[in-house]
Amino acid sequence: MPLDRSTLIPALHNLATQLRIDCVRATSKAGSGHPTTCASAADLVAALFAAEMRFDPTRPRHARADRFVLSKGHAAPILYAAWAAVGLFPRDELLTLREFTSDLEGHPTPRLPFVDVATGSLGQGLCAAVGIALNARRIGSDYRTYVLLGDGETAEGSVWEAAEAAAFQKLDSICGITDVNRLGQSRPTMYQHDLDAYARKYRAFGWHTIEIDGHDMGAILDAFAEARQTTGGPTMILARTLKGKGISFVEDKNGWHGKAFKQGEEEERALKELEAQYVDAPADTIARLVAAIPRPEGPADEPAVARASLPAPEYKLGESVATREAYGTALARLGQADPRVVALDADVGNSTFSERFEKVLPERFFEIYIAEQVMVGAAMGLAARGAIPFPSTFACFLSRAYDFIRMAAISGVGVKFAGSHAGVSIGEDGPSQMALEDLAMMRAEPNMTVFYPSDAVSAERLVELAAYTDGPAYLRTSRPKTPVIYGPDERFAVGGSKVLRESASDTATVVAAGVTVFEALKAYDTLRAEGVFLRVIDAYSVQPIDAATLRAAGRQTGNRIITVEDHYAAGGLGDAVAEAVAPEGITVHRLAVREIPRSGKPDELLDHYGISARHIVEAVKAART
Amino acid sequence: MPLDRSTLIPALHNLATQLRIDCVRATSKAGSGHPTTCASAADLVAALFAAEMRFDPTRPRHARADRFVLSKGHAAPILYAAWAAVGLFPRDELLTLREFTSDLEGHPTPRLPFVDVATGSLGQGLCAAVGIALNARRIGSDYRTYVLLGDGETAEGSVWEAAEAAAFQKLDSICGITDVNRLGQSRPTMYQHDLDAYARKYRAFGWHTIEIDGHDMGAILDAFAEARQTTGGPTMILARTLKGKGISFVEDKNGWHGKAFKQGEEEERALKELEAQYVDAPADTIARLVAAIPRPEGPADEPAVARASLPAPEYKLGESVATREAYGTALARLGQADPRVVALDADVGNSTFSERFEKVLPERFFEIYIAEQVMVGAAMGLAARGAIPFPSTFACFLSRAYDFIRMAAISGVGVKFAGSHAGVSIGEDGPSQMALEDLAMMRAEPNMTVFYPSDAVSAERLVELAAYTDGPAYLRTSRPKTPVIYGPDERFAVGGSKVLRESASDTATVVAAGVTVFEALKAYDTLRAEGVFLRVIDAYSVQPIDAATLRAAGRQTGNRIITVEDHYAAGGLGDAVAEAVAPEGITVHRLAVREIPRSGKPDELLDHYGISARHIVEAVKAART
Repeated sequence: MPLDRSTLIPALHNLATQLRIDCVRATSKAGSGHPTTCASAADLVAALFAAEMRFDPTRPRHARADRFVLSKGHAAPILYAAWAAVGLFPRDELLTLREFTSDLEGHPTPRLPFVDVATGSLGQGLCAAVGIALNARRIGSDYRTYVLLGDGETAEGSVWEAAEAAAFQKLDSICGITDVNRLGQSRPTMYQHDLDAYARKYRAFGWHTIEIDGHDMGAILDAFAEARQTTGGPTMILARTLKGKGISFVEDKNGWHGKAFKQGEEEERALKELEAQYVDAPADTIARLVAAIPRPEGPADEPAVARASLPAPEYKLGESVATREAYGTALARLGQADPRVVALDADVGNSTFSERFEKVLPERFFEIYIAEQVMVGAAMGLAARGAIPFPSTFACFLSRAYDFIRMAAISGVGVKFAGSHAGVSIGEDGPSQMALEDLAMMRAEPNMTVFYPSDAVSAERLVELAAYTDGPAYLRTSRPKTPVIYGPDERFAVGGSKVLRESASDTATVVAAGVTVFEALKAYDTLRAEGVFLRVIDAYSVQPIDAATLRAAGRQTGNRIITVEDHYAAGGLGDAVAEAVAPEGITVHRLAVREIPRSGKPDELLDHYGISARHIVEAVKAART
Repeated sequence: MPLDRSTLIPALHNLATQLRIDCVRATSKAGSGHPTTCASAADLVAALFAAEMRFDPTRPRHARADRFVLSKGHAAPILYAAWAAVGLFPRDELLTLREFTSDLEGHPTPRLPFVDVATGSLGQGLCAAVGIALNARRIGSDYRTYVLLGDGETAEGSVWEAAEAAAFQKLDSICGITDVNRLGQSRPTMYQHDLDAYARKYRAFGWHTIEIDGHDMGAILDAFAEARQTTGGPTMILARTLKGKGISFVEDKNGWHGKAFKQGEEEERALKELEAQYVDAPADTIARLVAAIPRPEGPADEPAVARASLPAPEYKLGESVATREAYGTALARLGQADPRVVALDADVGNSTFSERFEKVLPERFFEIYIAEQVMVGAAMGLAARGAIPFPSTFACFLSRAYDFIRMAAISGVGVKFAGSHAGVSIGEDGPSQMALEDLAMMRAEPNMTVFYPSDAVSAERLVELAAYTDGPAYLRTSRPKTPVIYGPDERFAVGGSKVLRESASDTATVVAAGVTVFEALKAYDTLRAEGVFLRVIDAYSVQPIDAATLRAAGRQTGNRIITVEDHYAAGGLGDAVAEAVAPEGITVHRLAVREIPRSGKPDELLDHYGISARHIVEAVKAART
């Protein structure tokens, strides 16, 4: 039973005081952290956790519970203190903050069961919330999504991408709260306490806005109620707060960002002031608050979905099909077989062929328009809540969302990135449209699976494999049509490869992927006509790479390995192969794009930038001398 | 002498028609491109080039000429057609569009003298304009900066970062024009022809807005005049246009994005319709327009600035100084010696130490707040106009601007990126604040110089070297204090390295950089006590890397090379060294971070993730067996 307001408000006030005290203690013990940014948010967080959100304090992963995203991730201690307050773990554990053996890290990560996506890179929380809210629609739940933002992070463009997407999708289940504490890291923010400067922007982006004093508990409760009543679009509560609220010697003062109070006199002084702020209330006040938290309705777990087994791809050997097109076909088939699969587009669905998914499954196709950050951020939120999201765009434009991809890797969420138009083989559009650093970008993340299909059959199979491989994955597709080289029953595996040509008298191994597979096969034909035999390997799994096959090939072909890739020289296939074969003492000769390219015909560019069949032939001949 | 309005408007109309015709011809000849997106913008571009901008058609690089940034870079043909119309090159050359031998690429790049920064990745033009406009202040010029945006790209958050920064900096010399042609690539845009949906947002961000019919030449001229009169902030003209304007069978029709008219009947039909749109005017109309273009005042070239030669760094050997702190000191010294040097901050100047620059040179310090995309985009604009910009933030947050970094590389502009807080050695803040993919990201760009200093002396010298090395450069600095190991007169070079320990009996080479240099030195001491000698190399120039020294070291130490880096395994120092020594047949054993790390103490993390002295010792011992 909910408490009446005259009991509730002092109880929440005391909870907020407890949260502030816990944050001071934890950060002082850790010797670092952000107590002042926790203090500004304490009243908001107390009200959210103990008087607004529906959730089960013992089951933070409940599928239908309201969600809370701490976009201002440096306020992590207050998130931890809130979950301790509702009883998920003992308050004493808060003192392990930032220790190596504790999951209470400096910024929240999903090692903790109540964290959906890692935060700490500012401006990402609202993007994730878009995906979390879209997921509520997907599973037919009315759970709400709350996001606590800092005022400083509102300068990030990604916040406005999310604002636009949330309004366009009419996500009235999103309630943002901006903790306008006036002070950034190095100086006051642009707008300081001018709440209307923020509100004007959100309203222009189609949001309902509410401006309040973020330390007035009654106003906070009213604002949440108003947000809950608001339909047709999201709500942003702009809360005027004081950084360091409740601790007189730091309150509203510049120069205290990210500083813990020194243990001893400084900490004691802060704690003494805070302790004095408890108001008279029954001893069991906080326990009564927790007991009154409304629990979510419906099953705590989504029904299990069996892995879909797709029928064999329908291509004929030798048929010409672009891998990007096969991606679209496979995505639509997969979506029809598995209700968790969703697609996100940045207005290039007719180039990436994700439009094929839209055609058959419009309700699970999310058009995000030209806003790659929120496309990826929303995919993170969807993945964190059980969907299998495929955001797709030109591979080069995934670089726009690299910080999100990085945080997706930290979060370990199963976003399946699909990038088309890889490399110089796109031709005339020129370098701005060519992805030549995407393999480096994706391979850098140690838990990212990286696939690079060469033909339509492998593209289809790798889409399926990406969907059902844990964690983030990347599928790189190409613009040009390429011949189908695999039969419909060919099997592909994470960490696999295909030996396309081999004989006992192979003189060298050429490792290729994507479009360069066909350059390697052409080089094979040329050399074979001269009586020289090559081993040709399609390294469709770039990460993990098939070390065993590569090492064996190297040993069997005179330790001569040549890699060829439509990518810059650093961080791509060549480096992956080189590291894999290094333990055998085998080195690799790398053919890759080594300068900023220009517009031209695809074949012209492959040749000019040194990755055509001719260059492979030359490299093989040079290696044999 | 300017033409009177009754002569001017038909003349501009005819120029717009000529531009449309040239774009159709060029794209049809090329067989690809975007004639319809050129057609919507033709009236705007004609008015800009022939009745608004002050420039010298024969000197596109003039330092005080008004600038034009084509943010919607896929409309490249109309940019080229405009420069042909004003006489920079013959109109016939437009027919080389998208050919390998032509600089008229699919999207504009600075291979062309009238392009400041490459565009084609949407949402970047307004960011660059912020920098171009800030540069006008730096050189004391009143040149104006015009940016033509598409309506679709307005969904990119970077546009709103730029909008905020431009308003905050009161850049009334910026005039944006949004070509609201209603149609994106795959479908209509979110707001179609609702100009006010855009205007509301810009107004909320502090811009003056003007809504016009983008095919009404009088309204266009009036809007430019109003923008020119507007002081205190930037102006956005929102122009209602029709995609494919003037070509009846495509005008305002979905499905014609990025499609050239087929040569033959289709092209002829389009051309015939356009030709019929010329209005009666004297034959020399366009020549008179061009002759009347107002020329810029002041010198066409900025006065030459001699390379500053900084005094020796002021540190004592063994003193403990973080490289990020030395960066701040060096930046301030460099700025005082060279008026071209500017610093840009994303509200972390007290962590990156760029605040030292602000303290002495506040007028060349640009606080961009937490908006890394516009920070980097503005730096691109500044660099394109002769400044030497150092944007700095935590290295991990440069990933937020990777698409801009990629375009900076394509543009070849001399932005000097500075990223602090590299690697797990930051400690307790956890993975969201650790840059572990920045070397991969930066090294992937083939023209990026990458420096990674280990001590304060090398940090200072590498700041100077970065400033005076052509093209983009990256300086990676660390959070922890490290001992000064170089004397004040030590010299550093692009592609250099330092052999810190060597003897005739070295058993292996350890290549380190940054904080791991000190782990390598500790390993050296440990092993030396056991009678085992190591070669230790500080690879401060990660790209280009010192191949000659590394190869020699490998040969002299039994082909045993171990790399150790505070970075993920892919794309960093290990890969750079491995490629450099591969031609000698030498392989490399790499110590690097191979999983997503967590919070902890710096030393604890270095050890846990396998890059501490202990691991180096073990690797050396394993290599010797």
